[in-house]
Amino acid sequence: MAVTKALQPFPKSEYLRRLIAVKAEMARRGIDALLVTSTSNITYLTGNVSRLYSIHGLLVMGDKAEPTMIVRAMDAAGCLHLTYLEPGNVIGYSDDYVGRPDQNGYDVMIDFIHEAGYANRSVGIEFNAGGALTLGVMTVATAEKFKARLENAQVVDATKLVDWVRLIKSDLEINVLRDAAAIADAAIMRAAEVIRPGVHESEVAAEIMAAQVRGAPGGKPATGAFAPLICSSPRTGTAHIVWSDDELRKGSQINIELSGNRHNYYAAIMRTFTIGPAPDRVRRLHEAQVAGLEAALAVARPGHTCSDVANAFYRTMGKMGFRKDSRCGYPIGIDWAEPTVSLQSSDSTELKPNMAFHLMLGNWLEDDFGYVISESFRVTGSNVEVLTKAPRKLFEL
Amino acid sequence: MAVTKALQPFPKSEYLRRLIAVKAEMARRGIDALLVTSTSNITYLTGNVSRLYSIHGLLVMGDKAEPTMIVRAMDAAGCLHLTYLEPGNVIGYSDDYVGRPDQNGYDVMIDFIHEAGYANRSVGIEFNAGGALTLGVMTVATAEKFKARLENAQVVDATKLVDWVRLIKSDLEINVLRDAAAIADAAIMRAAEVIRPGVHESEVAAEIMAAQVRGAPGGKPATGAFAPLICSSPRTGTAHIVWSDDELRKGSQINIELSGNRHNYYAAIMRTFTIGPAPDRVRRLHEAQVAGLEAALAVARPGHTCSDVANAFYRTMGKMGFRKDSRCGYPIGIDWAEPTVSLQSSDSTELKPNMAFHLMLGNWLEDDFGYVISESFRVTGSNVEVLTKAPRKLFEL
Repeated sequence: MAVTKALQPFPKSEYLRRLIAVKAEMARRGIDALLVTSTSNITYLTGNVSRLYSIHGLLVMGDKAEPTMIVRAMDAAGCLHLTYLEPGNVIGYSDDYVGRPDQNGYDVMIDFIHEAGYANRSVGIEFNAGGALTLGVMTVATAEKFKARLENAQVVDATKLVDWVRLIKSDLEINVLRDAAAIADAAIMRAAEVIRPGVHESEVAAEIMAAQVRGAPGGKPATGAFAPLICSSPRTGTAHIVWSDDELRKGSQINIELSGNRHNYYAAIMRTFTIGPAPDRVRRLHEAQVAGLEAALAVARPGHTCSDVANAFYRTMGKMGFRKDSRCGYPIGIDWAEPTVSLQSSDSTELKPNMAFHLMLGNWLEDDFGYVISESFRVTGSNVEVLTKAPRKLFEL
Repeated sequence: MAVTKALQPFPKSEYLRRLIAVKAEMARRGIDALLVTSTSNITYLTGNVSRLYSIHGLLVMGDKAEPTMIVRAMDAAGCLHLTYLEPGNVIGYSDDYVGRPDQNGYDVMIDFIHEAGYANRSVGIEFNAGGALTLGVMTVATAEKFKARLENAQVVDATKLVDWVRLIKSDLEINVLRDAAAIADAAIMRAAEVIRPGVHESEVAAEIMAAQVRGAPGGKPATGAFAPLICSSPRTGTAHIVWSDDELRKGSQINIELSGNRHNYYAAIMRTFTIGPAPDRVRRLHEAQVAGLEAALAVARPGHTCSDVANAFYRTMGKMGFRKDSRCGYPIGIDWAEPTVSLQSSDSTELKPNMAFHLMLGNWLEDDFGYVISESFRVTGSNVEVLTKAPRKLFEL
């Protein structure tokens, strides 16, 4: 019997719209077939949210209506269940291609490219796929295999072709990002409820993760959850520690960064908590950061650039006697951080309606002193919509 | 002020032991300096468990006592806090190297290789780093950069050099794997408590994730948690779906795979649950799988091979009228699945004491029918120690 179809997060027309945009860019670059290996790009084009830990690819063919997905056999049923793809367009390869040095799933893809008639044409490949949490980065040996086994094709690097299409969201995608942001908000508010002296950080983390899965009461539940980053005294100068075995104490400061995931769309948020009143230095930094955040949001609109947003933050911070050495954020969508533009002074990309960002203002001033705040927002026709709604405050508990 | 040192999961002598083993293999291959980019291998050599989302590397130098870590500036404090490395051996690069097409963190590593005097010597690089969940896979463009900017060095591919050293654990590592297995067990037992008709899968997932963080009462809490895989009716033929929005019902079957994480060491477990009595076909498959599992464990001992273990399972299953098309498991340690050997018929690697495996017996017989069971175990001097302790049964709830 065939696997049933899950309720799809988007109508098929939405996936076909995305596919058309990708095919238009392929045509512009003279690419006849595009092999997509980035899990985020595959999610974008098919809706798949099952975990593709094994070698996987999606072949988009310029002259075929729908793409073909090639995954390990054990993953085929999940991909069929979760996507609009018909059984004929999902190929599962056997475990003869797993755990062996001489052949792997990429050989199956190359065989398929031959069979489908693209071995003498132009084939685009994501040789340098990125994204912090994306699976499907191609190794050097795999790239060489493609060049050797497609010796009559014109093999071109199509890295980030799909990622650039993803940068501007549809209204349907923005709706899902709103749901993801509500999940992130719920987790932050749960943190505010459970952070108390004598509580272990792991207990706070357990409650946060449960909230990251459940979402807000009456809201949508999550489709996955990443461990929250909980950097507390004496490690508030660190950025990416999940949590420690320590107990929280009176006077502890706790910097939290976490995300909400809905259909693998991520919205992210950071907030700082203190047990008891915040020391003056923390409060002054908080005030400068919020002023900078609001200055950045005030200039984020179509026609302005990524650098305008970052510079508004840096300028305001500077006036208030602080600085931040790292960039101010990145696009959000599928898989948390998209690997295209960057909210930093050197990026002159123009903002467009329905670009979405994590305005990430974590500021680690010294090895043992830092503070975090952030919002997820989208660009509207005239200014911004802030997606995360948790109180924009320093949580003094 | 400098960041304090966290309580280390292992004494420094343990890291130096690992380093000596890696240096011995470097010497055997004539490698003077080894650049490690796999996050799992970096954890192995330093104890770092902070999340290295940005470009990162660890340079192990044959003639220097301790390695040098190169990470994004915002990650330096976390690495200093969590590892035994001294401030002089952790270099943080500025955000001038982030989000730019022309230069990135790898340029900083290449500069350091020049400064440290290895630009005319033999430099090993993990060009094809793997591991399902490992960050730090090198893209093709990066590999070309290394070859171009180290044109006077002998650049050699040292992929999996460290991974092969990791394959045999120390007793200290086995202790940590025991703690990880206890966390996994606690999460499975929590699932058995909360799976009921009318409960949403996301609610089950929320409770499982909280248990994956808290661990067992009186046991050690986790150091991170991955979303559990919850494949329920009608999708029991799928392998890697996290969960759905659906409500569980009387008659539902729920296949769960999850892991426990302690200091980024992972133990994994799979169990199958039914609400109400299991149908005959599920029960017969369960009996065959358990018989196969026990046959596999009975031959897992030093001197036997990976293929002996897999074949014992396949043979027993065959006698009982079933088959499984996928491999029987993989080594566990840091980052869940290690990318070296494989429990499958084609792998004749000999088992050695303190190798550890996830004997993964998920069996997806049809697109809409599957069953899962597994154990994490280590090879002892004479047979095996099963690390996961949850009842080896079909949970009929």
